[in-house]
Amino acid sequence: MYAAILAGGVGTRLWPRSRQDHPKQFSDITGSGRTMIQATVDRLEGLVSAADLYVVTGAPYAGLARIQLPAIPADQILLEPSGRNTAPAIGLACVHIRRRDPQGIVAILHSDHAIPDAAAFRQALRRAEVAAAAGGIATLGITPTFPHTGYGYIKRGRSLDNLPAGEPAVYTVEQFLEKPDRATAEAFLADGAYYWNGGIFVCRVDVMLREIDRQLPQLSAALGRIDAALDGPPDHAQAVLESVWPAIPNISIDHGVMEGAEAVATVPLRAGWNDVGSWDALEAVLSPDADDNCIAHGDVIGEGSRHNIVYGDARLIALIGVENLVVVDTGDTLLIGHKQQMQNVKTIVERLRAQGRSDLL
Amino acid sequence: MYAAILAGGVGTRLWPRSRQDHPKQFSDITGSGRTMIQATVDRLEGLVSAADLYVVTGAPYAGLARIQLPAIPADQILLEPSGRNTAPAIGLACVHIRRRDPQGIVAILHSDHAIPDAAAFRQALRRAEVAAAAGGIATLGITPTFPHTGYGYIKRGRSLDNLPAGEPAVYTVEQFLEKPDRATAEAFLADGAYYWNGGIFVCRVDVMLREIDRQLPQLSAALGRIDAALDGPPDHAQAVLESVWPAIPNISIDHGVMEGAEAVATVPLRAGWNDVGSWDALEAVLSPDADDNCIAHGDVIGEGSRHNIVYGDARLIALIGVENLVVVDTGDTLLIGHKQQMQNVKTIVERLRAQGRSDLL
Repeated sequence: MYAAILAGGVGTRLWPRSRQDHPKQFSDITGSGRTMIQATVDRLEGLVSAADLYVVTGAPYAGLARIQLPAIPADQILLEPSGRNTAPAIGLACVHIRRRDPQGIVAILHSDHAIPDAAAFRQALRRAEVAAAAGGIATLGITPTFPHTGYGYIKRGRSLDNLPAGEPAVYTVEQFLEKPDRATAEAFLADGAYYWNGGIFVCRVDVMLREIDRQLPQLSAALGRIDAALDGPPDHAQAVLESVWPAIPNISIDHGVMEGAEAVATVPLRAGWNDVGSWDALEAVLSPDADDNCIAHGDVIGEGSRHNIVYGDARLIALIGVENLVVVDTGDTLLIGHKQQMQNVKTIVERLRAQGRSDLL
Repeated sequence: MYAAILAGGVGTRLWPRSRQDHPKQFSDITGSGRTMIQATVDRLEGLVSAADLYVVTGAPYAGLARIQLPAIPADQILLEPSGRNTAPAIGLACVHIRRRDPQGIVAILHSDHAIPDAAAFRQALRRAEVAAAAGGIATLGITPTFPHTGYGYIKRGRSLDNLPAGEPAVYTVEQFLEKPDRATAEAFLADGAYYWNGGIFVCRVDVMLREIDRQLPQLSAALGRIDAALDGPPDHAQAVLESVWPAIPNISIDHGVMEGAEAVATVPLRAGWNDVGSWDALEAVLSPDADDNCIAHGDVIGEGSRHNIVYGDARLIALIGVENLVVVDTGDTLLIGHKQQMQNVKTIVERLRAQGRSDLL
């Protein structure tokens, strides 16, 4: 199996540790000692070797990707001239893999998700690989743990009993659903047949490129030119990529391909998956200490302080009588927020941008 | 008028900015740009010239005092070989001043109090000077603004109509009172004839030394030996000071002298006095911004954050949805506490001391 790791995003929700010149996926957000993209690669150990890994990221991050992932061949770190959402990035990776292995199976992964139970994750990917070999696109359906209104959902259909029996189960996909309202999300959770759509899936590259050709002909034509140019010298291939890319439609794989794809399957995943979409998510990923504080990193001394999330830097952090705070300390910025208001990090970032303080972003 | 500024204390309540090697009085606690002892000297402008200022501090702080107060003659920075509380420190200053001016009037001041209305303070000192010239010890009675249970109180007696008429008024002292319980403090506040004892007073040096001689003969004898040695070479004077000092009783001026002194007067002071005994006191000293946050120093951006007290350092501090916090950032330590729990700074300091982390204290 190959893997294509999507690493093009530049989120602001994990500011101040995630920065424009050093986005979330290239940062150690969970305090594990590994950046999120390194942890993504680590998680594939025994399943996908470095020689079979592809990374798709923005041109400004080529250096970060090469330094952080030295085992991946440099020409498998694919650089998008600009961000065009997930469908073009996945198409680009599939084109490159198809040149090596026309029916190669690829796991499409995000570079900035936390998945604590790596063994369960690999088991689900292996199961998805079986479904993909049969010509389907197998998406991982993340077993929901609460009625989240920020994710799309997948409704499973019948069990795919034409596949060899095994664990985890494989189901057809009855429907991809948009982000629900609270009541709908609660009904999904109670029903048990709905999964979070984490955007992780496994398919044959020829199957994916055929779906792109059927559903997104403009993207398919552009990918065809990029593919043809790869037969020539590298300078020419790069020039074609840069000339073709700006006109490529900005479209997600969900809207552009998955919702209209023919044989879609889903493999349930219960592995503590978390997209770490804001600082308060660390609580779901880290183990609390005796005072129920989650310390991702740093030297913390607490007195009467509980339920806090701390990502420290070099200095000592003393907490006195505080609860439900998020504290993120970096060399130039200190963020202190209430756990339930961390979505407002974006507002702070926007205000700093409006003030022209790009050195802090 | 002379002034003797007491600067021997090493408090821990304003950690992490106040340190063992850099105590509160030598630190800029209020973010004014001046250390507290510098602000104490600034406040005397037009009333006491630098040539007439004496500082009494611990030997380890000689360098800090000389650097921060370059206008004060070096031989007027008097060094205690060890801390012996306020009575010996004041006696030492009076001995030195008496050698220059046998009936000189001295204002005894603390180096770590905030007194925003410096003009009102100087006016009270001038009024106290009149009472002191007549042979009394005039203490400033701080008009209480709430029923504080952490201070001693002064009960005023009759108006001193033997002094020239003037503002503020001068009263006899009927009684010095220990720290009251809450109900008593409330009664004091309602009564209007009670003042906080801030330990600030004005007297003739000969009057003070006569009271010490009458009430604290052991201290008086020691001061006599120190005084006599000052007639000889500096090395000898220093040797006598160091040999005499350790046996001097550790006693406060309140218990040792004031409570039993003969002619004690009090001059009411209403000048925003605050002893800045913990970080939350900054709220009483600083002006709040539009969001009711008190920013002593630093670069702060807030979103939905109110009633916080921030003493920043070089880095940006972003606050999101937090209230009633104290945030103190220094080069090596970050303190985040609830305003109403700042007395627990001492607990943190004790724990760090027990851990042998003296570099942070």
